[in-house]
Amino acid sequence: MSDEVMQLSQLWTGSHYNEGIGRDDIFDKLREECGVFGAFNIPDASSLGYYGLHALQHRGEESSGMCTVDSRNGGSFNYYRGMGLVKEVFNQERLDGLPGDRVIGHVRYSTAGESKLGNAQPLIFKYRDGDLAVATNGNIVNAPSIREELEQQGSIFQTTSDTEVIAHLIARSSKDFVSAAKDALQRLIGGFAFLIMTNGKLLVASDAHGLRPLVMGKLGEGYVFASETCALETCGAVYERDVQPGELIILDSDGIRFDRFEKLERRATCAMEYIYFARPDSDINGINLHSARKRMGQKLALESFVDADVVTGVPDSSISAAIGYAEQTGIPYELGLIKNKYTGRTFIQPSQELREKGVKMKLSAVRKVVEGKRVVMIDDSIVRGTTSLRIVNLLREAGATEVHVRITSPPFMNPCYYGIDTPDRKELIASQKTVEEIRQAINADSITFLSHEGFIEAVGGNDGEFNRGMCMACFDNDYPTPVDPTSEKSCSC
Amino acid sequence: MSDEVMQLSQLWTGSHYNEGIGRDDIFDKLREECGVFGAFNIPDASSLGYYGLHALQHRGEESSGMCTVDSRNGGSFNYYRGMGLVKEVFNQERLDGLPGDRVIGHVRYSTAGESKLGNAQPLIFKYRDGDLAVATNGNIVNAPSIREELEQQGSIFQTTSDTEVIAHLIARSSKDFVSAAKDALQRLIGGFAFLIMTNGKLLVASDAHGLRPLVMGKLGEGYVFASETCALETCGAVYERDVQPGELIILDSDGIRFDRFEKLERRATCAMEYIYFARPDSDINGINLHSARKRMGQKLALESFVDADVVTGVPDSSISAAIGYAEQTGIPYELGLIKNKYTGRTFIQPSQELREKGVKMKLSAVRKVVEGKRVVMIDDSIVRGTTSLRIVNLLREAGATEVHVRITSPPFMNPCYYGIDTPDRKELIASQKTVEEIRQAINADSITFLSHEGFIEAVGGNDGEFNRGMCMACFDNDYPTPVDPTSEKSCSC
Amino acid sequence: MSDEVMQLSQLWTGSHYNEGIGRDDIFDKLREECGVFGAFNIPDASSLGYYGLHALQHRGEESSGMCTVDSRNGGSFNYYRGMGLVKEVFNQERLDGLPGDRVIGHVRYSTAGESKLGNAQPLIFKYRDGDLAVATNGNIVNAPSIREELEQQGSIFQTTSDTEVIAHLIARSSKDFVSAAKDALQRLIGGFAFLIMTNGKLLVASDAHGLRPLVMGKLGEGYVFASETCALETCGAVYERDVQPGELIILDSDGIRFDRFEKLERRATCAMEYIYFARPDSDINGINLHSARKRMGQKLALESFVDADVVTGVPDSSISAAIGYAEQTGIPYELGLIKNKYTGRTFIQPSQELREKGVKMKLSAVRKVVEGKRVVMIDDSIVRGTTSLRIVNLLREAGATEVHVRITSPPFMNPCYYGIDTPDRKELIASQKTVEEIRQAINADSITFLSHEGFIEAVGGNDGEFNRGMCMACFDNDYPTPVDPTSEKSCSC
Amino acid sequence: MSDEVMQLSQLWTGSHYNEGIGRDDIFDKLREECGVFGAFNIPDASSLGYYGLHALQHRGEESSGMCTVDSRNGGSFNYYRGMGLVKEVFNQERLDGLPGDRVIGHVRYSTAGESKLGNAQPLIFKYRDGDLAVATNGNIVNAPSIREELEQQGSIFQTTSDTEVIAHLIARSSKDFVSAAKDALQRLIGGFAFLIMTNGKLLVASDAHGLRPLVMGKLGEGYVFASETCALETCGAVYERDVQPGELIILDSDGIRFDRFEKLERRATCAMEYIYFARPDSDINGINLHSARKRMGQKLALESFVDADVVTGVPDSSISAAIGYAEQTGIPYELGLIKNKYTGRTFIQPSQELREKGVKMKLSAVRKVVEGKRVVMIDDSIVRGTTSLRIVNLLREAGATEVHVRITSPPFMNPCYYGIDTPDRKELIASQKTVEEIRQAINADSITFLSHEGFIEAVGGNDGEFNRGMCMACFDNDYPTPVDPTSEKSCSC
Repeated sequence: MSDEVMQLSQLWTGSHYNEGIGRDDIFDKLREECGVFGAFNIPDASSLGYYGLHALQHRGEESSGMCTVDSRNGGSFNYYRGMGLVKEVFNQERLDGLPGDRVIGHVRYSTAGESKLGNAQPLIFKYRDGDLAVATNGNIVNAPSIREELEQQGSIFQTTSDTEVIAHLIARSSKDFVSAAKDALQRLIGGFAFLIMTNGKLLVASDAHGLRPLVMGKLGEGYVFASETCALETCGAVYERDVQPGELIILDSDGIRFDRFEKLERRATCAMEYIYFARPDSDINGINLHSARKRMGQKLALESFVDADVVTGVPDSSISAAIGYAEQTGIPYELGLIKNKYTGRTFIQPSQELREKGVKMKLSAVRKVVEGKRVVMIDDSIVRGTTSLRIVNLLREAGATEVHVRITSPPFMNPCYYGIDTPDRKELIASQKTVEEIRQAINADSITFLSHEGFIEAVGGNDGEFNRGMCMACFDNDYPTPVDPTSEKSCSC
Repeated sequence: MSDEVMQLSQLWTGSHYNEGIGRDDIFDKLREECGVFGAFNIPDASSLGYYGLHALQHRGEESSGMCTVDSRNGGSFNYYRGMGLVKEVFNQERLDGLPGDRVIGHVRYSTAGESKLGNAQPLIFKYRDGDLAVATNGNIVNAPSIREELEQQGSIFQTTSDTEVIAHLIARSSKDFVSAAKDALQRLIGGFAFLIMTNGKLLVASDAHGLRPLVMGKLGEGYVFASETCALETCGAVYERDVQPGELIILDSDGIRFDRFEKLERRATCAMEYIYFARPDSDINGINLHSARKRMGQKLALESFVDADVVTGVPDSSISAAIGYAEQTGIPYELGLIKNKYTGRTFIQPSQELREKGVKMKLSAVRKVVEGKRVVMIDDSIVRGTTSLRIVNLLREAGATEVHVRITSPPFMNPCYYGIDTPDRKELIASQKTVEEIRQAINADSITFLSHEGFIEAVGGNDGEFNRGMCMACFDNDYPTPVDPTSEKSCSC
Repeated sequence: MSDEVMQLSQLWTGSHYNEGIGRDDIFDKLREECGVFGAFNIPDASSLGYYGLHALQHRGEESSGMCTVDSRNGGSFNYYRGMGLVKEVFNQERLDGLPGDRVIGHVRYSTAGESKLGNAQPLIFKYRDGDLAVATNGNIVNAPSIREELEQQGSIFQTTSDTEVIAHLIARSSKDFVSAAKDALQRLIGGFAFLIMTNGKLLVASDAHGLRPLVMGKLGEGYVFASETCALETCGAVYERDVQPGELIILDSDGIRFDRFEKLERRATCAMEYIYFARPDSDINGINLHSARKRMGQKLALESFVDADVVTGVPDSSISAAIGYAEQTGIPYELGLIKNKYTGRTFIQPSQELREKGVKMKLSAVRKVVEGKRVVMIDDSIVRGTTSLRIVNLLREAGATEVHVRITSPPFMNPCYYGIDTPDRKELIASQKTVEEIRQAINADSITFLSHEGFIEAVGGNDGEFNRGMCMACFDNDYPTPVDPTSEKSCSC
Repeated sequence: MSDEVMQLSQLWTGSHYNEGIGRDDIFDKLREECGVFGAFNIPDASSLGYYGLHALQHRGEESSGMCTVDSRNGGSFNYYRGMGLVKEVFNQERLDGLPGDRVIGHVRYSTAGESKLGNAQPLIFKYRDGDLAVATNGNIVNAPSIREELEQQGSIFQTTSDTEVIAHLIARSSKDFVSAAKDALQRLIGGFAFLIMTNGKLLVASDAHGLRPLVMGKLGEGYVFASETCALETCGAVYERDVQPGELIILDSDGIRFDRFEKLERRATCAMEYIYFARPDSDINGINLHSARKRMGQKLALESFVDADVVTGVPDSSISAAIGYAEQTGIPYELGLIKNKYTGRTFIQPSQELREKGVKMKLSAVRKVVEGKRVVMIDDSIVRGTTSLRIVNLLREAGATEVHVRITSPPFMNPCYYGIDTPDRKELIASQKTVEEIRQAINADSITFLSHEGFIEAVGGNDGEFNRGMCMACFDNDYPTPVDPTSEKSCSC
């Protein structure tokens, strides 16, 4: 066992433990990096953006921002960005300050303090032809080298965000705006969904492999774009289709035009979107995620049945899969774990003394449900293993006689370079330990992971639709683009 | 059809509708009125209170308050109350301003604006023998007549809360404090859980029928009291027992003493606590509520099976029952409805124009799940029927071919006088319409309610514990105390 | 030299010192306790109250509150109170929540933290005949004994404020409201200005000696009452007259009626209102305070001329007097001391390290003005002497060669029992030391106080108006009522 | 009379008027555009910056910001900027987030809403050699043409602030940083004080004519730079000297070095700094401003004596001059006008209805002082004339029999291009009307302006110091640099 992992394990093996101190520690979960939303030719676009971003809030809780253009009023920019949830950053007065019929918006996780407000998106630039706003979800693998090249030529950057490079590439081009944008997009390697707005145009682009989700809907005479379909549904927009890999959509006073900056390749959508990130009521490439997750649970039941008294899921992300596991096995699904929905950023963490007394605040095991029972605990993934250990121990303390852990994805072994905030490889428990060692580390009676094939089948379901390619590099190390293992993996947004 | 109900129905029958404007309209749900929490002989009691009240937040989101006493420091009072969630009202600085080893706290719904902060509890009084703090959950049926009598004698009230009468009755008595409190409690008719604190003592009392839940736990050398067991669990306290009907527990420097102000009668716990109010991970009288609700769903399946493609529950309260229904019938449970967890008090309501465009913010139907399907929709109760109509229509708009409504309780026909905020009888759809008329009003293909017997069996389960009496007056008009139908029904807290 | 005073002196004698840590220490000044404002028969009375209270803000910066009644709408009460300045406590939304054509309002100093919001006025009570709101400025000397008597009879108090006794006395009376109020006012000993509002009436009363200022104005068809005339001026109201000692004014739907609860006695207005508390643009009993203070400076010049290069005043209260001194002597008035106007409650106090570096934030000496000069420094009073020492030292550090302190009032030797927050007698430097000892303690080259006669003449000026009686007990120990030296001196409001 | 001026006049001629609606209207005053503060080699530099900026708050109340570098820790940047006063933007937590021994800070007026936070300074850039922070006071006349040139070369701007051009000029230069900065400064035409910080260096520069004030002080082993000496005094720093025209001071780990980017020319300090902007306790080029303003009043008295009963000054800026006028003439100085110190950004403006009732909130005339009196009203300048008319009318309504206006500067006839926010020439009353017409427009009995010679003598005083050159272009149209009358005049900061 490596020292690091050992330390982490020891952290949670004592008789007293709790839910961590900082926010990041509370759930040892992967974090989505961003969500984007855009609307074109919609009256009061910022109000629509408010509800659309709100539906994407789970993709980023740290900062929110919107930029609007009123096409009937010269196309001047209005924007506001702030730290916090959409509902905290925007009030009616601020929405009133964002008139217009076009909007791009963004929700984001940040990794640092308030001085990083500067990194909140949409980023706003002023260049030769006017104003430029950019909102991204994802990561540009070769941004550092492009950035260095631009700086050598005298470019000034306002943020640490790699997103900024696309604005510089466009500003330095002598071609017209759309051609400049296509050139710029072609240079970028990685996984990204881009919304780019100028005084006159809105551009929508997905990377060459369609790594990050991006969908298009129709609302009245206008168009809506979002990271997930749940935002379309919230807005009352009708889903049209997923934006295609390498596609560039151009909207302006002449209407909508579909173009591409790369020839169409097989899609490689991020597998973790199916497993964990996207909302269960969203569809990706036509697949509803609650249903897909339920099928993962069913598949897992077929692959690794265990005789037990109750099935429970780790809330909120694994409930669907747990129900699927229960349906398939006939073991009753029960509410063995519960999450308190009122916690949030401003919540006061319990002191060490209180934690030692047993004060819990986010997740509790339900004694009446698990006491004296053999429990199947369904979770979607194991990153470092610390949270799993903690939850297994919560169940044991509440009286579970056996805890069988079932994971609805293959072992997570490789870092992501496309916009998911993953720890270093050496902190990924599955890259450091055998399955039996993991079982010991998390104090489980048994543990199994869903197989690659089972996972793929569960996603595809009994559904014949094509275009179901996935990036599963985190499981199989097969990255769809060149990556630079020495560079920072954090997202561009 | 009465005019009122017709109007309400028409409100939601149009082709466009949405989630209401004011908070009260958003979910036409009954509202619990309060939660109470107390701790005795616990170092840093206010921090424990913070986590305990937080676990009871679902019982009252509008105001929060705590009062502490430091028994080693003369017993002087410290308190703070404010509008908002526990995490909004209290920060570390405010907790630091509440030193002590004893605490009583309260979360509350209010029906009006900020000037009603005065009604936030614990209420604090200064009387002959020092300070007095009172926190209540419930309603005192005869408070208005006692209040009038006191006012005629020259008493001044600081609030509109009926809770205040107990303080006046105690202050005007010439007996010692405990005797005075017993006399006062004896005079009160209704359903209530009381925590009363003076500079030297903490009193804990449950009404003569045990209408409102109240439990006792042990934590180290101290005691914890709360409206629900989930607060004990959150605090790391060990559940001891439910406070008995008519019981008065006295804690002071001499320790704990169990007394009563009424002789023990059969318990009549509020049925709606089992059905809807209490958290699913709480136990009442030894019954876990998730399990009870699942059994309600199972019983409902046995009583009124319908052939369908999917079962879905109205979040959050009916998920357990829906899973029970699905398990019993073999029809798969699916996520047909989803609630957005980020909305809250400060959320901007969509304008009429946006609502007509279809903007939703709290509840959405999941198209991929329900499209072309026959749906069983499980809900816990129907009050006015407006929300049910709305949800049925949401499902139909998302493509459900049939919607069969199954309610996990008998028809709700009579107002509550014991602390639940219910509309007037004429607004209760089940007291105005036949089941068939209700079906039409909510646009369902079929509707059934759980029978009285089925409900009682589901609560009792296969569990032999005694003391399972319930108040089911809202279903059967059999009130355990005299009530005054002309008086205001709202709670004392 | 007493130990206490010695300690205080030593505090400021070192080579480094600064402006204190807590707010109270920053300026060792007496503090006015409250301001009251009322309006009757004025549309949108709360907006008028906002501007009126704002004009009285100098009389209390810690909490603000208003209560309104809409006489055309049944007389129901609306109120809001909060910690902070008027502009912080009230926004448009909160004013909108206070409809009505009658208002009473209050600004207040508090001596403790936020849990004392309960003491913010107007206090609101519910009694037999409806609602009762009370706002006071001043102190009731015999409130503790009345309170004890009431508690023995079973009364409950909601605050620690002595103001509350008047409400209980009224509630317990069997007479009609006005008679009950007169009886209650007769029982009270002390100095106070009362505004009392019920659903139907507004009462305005001044104590038997007129110790605390209270004026009446006319605005359109309505009436305005305030602690100072500056509030009338701000409201556009026309000054009518000062409320008389022992007067009770009754306003209701029958109009205005002038009554009394005590026979008219010689007025004994608080001398410190003339010297320091009231705004310079206010008039008391027809005397403008800027002019009175300028005359105090002139009189002081005649009584104790000293040859010097510049005259400077301690801002803000002593500027008028300093100009008077300069005019009389011909020595130029200069800006030798300056106060930073942006400091306030939220300001971060400099750390010890920064203070040792010389960081100042409230008061600075202006080097260019005082360097190499003999300075006359005018101040209004000396309480403990600590601030005087600090300012003298500031001037010396900035290069003043001589500092001659001139005080525009007699030595302050006795505590106030009528609503001014004064320290204990043993902390009053003038009651512990001779004038020469004071000079040494504050490091001045000379010091003189204005004589009693000079002070009286300066206030009366060359003006023949009668009714100029003053309470000068703080200078001469001649209290106009019995006082209880053992009781707490702090105000009732 | 031009139409515009006529309209403006009519605005205030009616029998009712008040203090305007928006902030800008409240006092028709010129507005300083910014203040800058820097410290080098000072432990806990951000705390010092807090007090320093606070002392400069009068130069900009809309936004505040600081950027720090810890030279012992690699020179990484920390910064925070926000809308509001220094005390509102920074709290202890935010200061703690700004560690370091070097700081540059900025206070600023903005002309627009919150979306302009992006323009708050210090501006932060990332370029080839690391980080760059810039804080400016003043205006660059030729920034638009440089900006256009840079944009044509593909530069992206993050703000509308012209300040940004200097960063681009530096980033695009192939020379070393200091040489690049000197080249850049040489290209800029205008009036400006610059603080420029990189990870390794701090640069301090004043424009070629020293138009905007900038001073240097010493504090322990470190240096302090500020727009005014009052900030040095607040910090406990010892004034060293004013930064010279065309000077460039370089501070880094090698210490301090004095260089220049232009050869030394005669200074042309902005005259309005002497008259109005700078704090009265500040010195510019060795002249104390209170004293200078008093001499302006004395000079005005000699030039245009008028027989009257009282002299009063428009607060706060004209008090010093009014005292000077009074001293010279022997007419007593009185407090005829008073400003309420508690108003501020969040203050609710009185409704039209209340204003018609006479509600005032910022400025009142003191009836007792001016009633029946002939008043000399001293003000520092007249811009549009609207405020003067309003104040004259306030005095007349309070009973003044005559109002003689005396202005302590020559007529303000020409817009400023160097950082003062002035209206267009056609709105400047003195450029549109004769003195007699102005007298009529403001409803005065007489009006005089201080002569050019009188003004110059008053500033120079009886003081022999050289280096007293002033820019008086606003009076005499003699601009020290080329200006572009067609360009926007607003400041770069």
